Amino acid sequence: MALLPHWVFPELDASALGAARARQDTLTKPRGSLGVLEDLAVALAGIQGGAPASRPAAAVLFAADHPVARHGVSAYPPEVTAAMVANFVRGGAAASVLCRNLGVDLRVVDVGVAHPYERVDGGDGARLRRDPVADDPIGDLRIEDALSEVVYERALRAGAAEIDALDSDTRVVLLGDMGIGNTTAAAAMTALLLGLAPEDVVGAGTGVSGDALSRKIEVVRDATRRAQEVSGVLRTDPHRVVQAVGGKEIAALVGAMARAIELRMAVLVDGFIVSTAALALVRMCAEARSGMLFAHRSAERGHAHVLAALDARPLLDLGMRLGEASAALAALPLLDAACALHAGMATFASASVPDRARPGTR
Amino acid sequence: MALLPHWVFPELDASALGAARARQDTLTKPRGSLGVLEDLAVALAGIQGGAPASRPAAAVLFAADHPVARHGVSAYPPEVTAAMVANFVRGGAAASVLCRNLGVDLRVVDVGVAHPYERVDGGDGARLRRDPVADDPIGDLRIEDALSEVVYERALRAGAAEIDALDSDTRVVLLGDMGIGNTTAAAAMTALLLGLAPEDVVGAGTGVSGDALSRKIEVVRDATRRAQEVSGVLRTDPHRVVQAVGGKEIAALVGAMARAIELRMAVLVDGFIVSTAALALVRMCAEARSGMLFAHRSAERGHAHVLAALDARPLLDLGMRLGEASAALAALPLLDAACALHAGMATFASASVPDRARPGTR
Repeated sequence: MALLPHWVFPELDASALGAARARQDTLTKPRGSLGVLEDLAVALAGIQGGAPASRPAAAVLFAADHPVARHGVSAYPPEVTAAMVANFVRGGAAASVLCRNLGVDLRVVDVGVAHPYERVDGGDGARLRRDPVADDPIGDLRIEDALSEVVYERALRAGAAEIDALDSDTRVVLLGDMGIGNTTAAAAMTALLLGLAPEDVVGAGTGVSGDALSRKIEVVRDATRRAQEVSGVLRTDPHRVVQAVGGKEIAALVGAMARAIELRMAVLVDGFIVSTAALALVRMCAEARSGMLFAHRSAERGHAHVLAALDARPLLDLGMRLGEASAALAALPLLDAACALHAGMATFASASVPDRARPGTR
Repeated sequence: MALLPHWVFPELDASALGAARARQDTLTKPRGSLGVLEDLAVALAGIQGGAPASRPAAAVLFAADHPVARHGVSAYPPEVTAAMVANFVRGGAAASVLCRNLGVDLRVVDVGVAHPYERVDGGDGARLRRDPVADDPIGDLRIEDALSEVVYERALRAGAAEIDALDSDTRVVLLGDMGIGNTTAAAAMTALLLGLAPEDVVGAGTGVSGDALSRKIEVVRDATRRAQEVSGVLRTDPHRVVQAVGGKEIAALVGAMARAIELRMAVLVDGFIVSTAALALVRMCAEARSGMLFAHRSAERGHAHVLAALDARPLLDLGMRLGEASAALAALPLLDAACALHAGMATFASASVPDRARPGTR
């Protein structure tokens, strides 16, 4: 695998962590009374290596299709991937609306959309780029590896390139996905990486139930058996897992996440798909974990297993299961609040508020 | 109790509810995939009686002292209530910072602060009003009723008056509290209203543990026994519960909440103190419940019981225990997101996204 990037992930900045924790304890509130909002400010300081900042933030979505969708694993036809790419750009998708509402730049990268879409650029929606990897071949993960080693590596680099194209002062990156069929791919990855049965990791995705859900479980069972028995994929080789049963947008998410963490941008992980990419990356290189914050506990079945494996406690639990970075965008204002409080609150000393410690108090 | 206000609470607007739910099902996302953000938009429509709106939003804090603080039930001395009022106005408190960050007007009403504070108005902090009820007497709830019937009624009206003073187009009201000793009062109210033992409802408050926590439990035990045995307070009379063991800011919260709900403003309930006022109000008049949204599951021990009694599932669970409407302010961006998505997303038809329903899909 000589082509694979060699990542060097920074450690948390101990000095910035310590300074942030010390400042929190001087602010005009009982110590610890802002709960996770205190922890978030301290975590951002450690990741970013300075005073915690939630802005500038950028949202980057990777879109691709999956030949496995031909088996009826989604409630929607594959043409929806292309239609939603156009919808992002025109500003009508959930991610477009949330980005506009929060003043966050939205970038959509087509790394493998199979159907044509209108090329409407500008407007108040997203900026769109079609990466050359989009034209590379992809297999039906039920019967063959989704990505060759070469295509996998190109998709990783497509993700990293998009991070390198962000303004260099970007402090938080929100990653998202669009791809009909990609909860099937993510479920297969989760089953392989965590050694779980398909029925424990396959969920409703866009909204399948009954026979369609059973079919989806069987597709994941076929895919994981094939990957292990035919392609010889071991759970200890996460690169091979992504190639065998992942997809181009998932590989791009791995590459983007890795590059953002290398650059000390905090990664706000969205739902099931992005979390599965995060799990793969952490299995490739455990040091990546400390650069990640988790937005949401998805309603999608496999997500709880992925979160547990990552020892992640997400900020929100709102029953969302959309993808598109929508949950990360819902959580971003909590980072904004944490940073504003950290920077803007008065200290006990500056506000002349008595900070008397009585016996038996903390 | 002839002086008590007679509240008339509106029912949820069935037509607005239905229209909002129908619109959600046309937006370009799998049905239900935005989870609670869909429910929030629909709930706001029902409460407000039209298209859901999160703005204009106003935050109103009621501040008062509690003679019961003399028993060492808080980690902080009573002077902190006054110091924090000044801190709100100068813009250094958590609530001030969050309001500034979100563009929300902050109003602080002194309904019984016992110590002097600097009268700095203007600046980028809160607008402050001292209500005449602030000068009325208040008792130590451990040994006597906190509020006479007359003072209670004046505090209710002080709360309602503050809502009447808001811009009439205000759509969401965030209520908060400040008062050293008030988790003791709220714990005693919760014990009485729900028939629970003091040790099940008393928590750390500003941060007491060990002997101080035991002392706080004993104070609540004395207060609830006294209220029942000496004052003859029944759990079925929530007005008497607030008078016996509540406080002026808690009564003002009840009055403000009732008035806001009458006016079809959605009330975003903060943490333990505001939730206890909400519980009292719902026990006075069950119809009030439908006007309330719950922001946060507090780290404060008694809160879980209050939420369960109100059948409330809060938006956030971030381990906060500050009060000051801080949790409601942390949750407001979720209402913003829900309303923006509801108004701004494209429909399947307008975006030409295929919305094919396959068998076994929803």
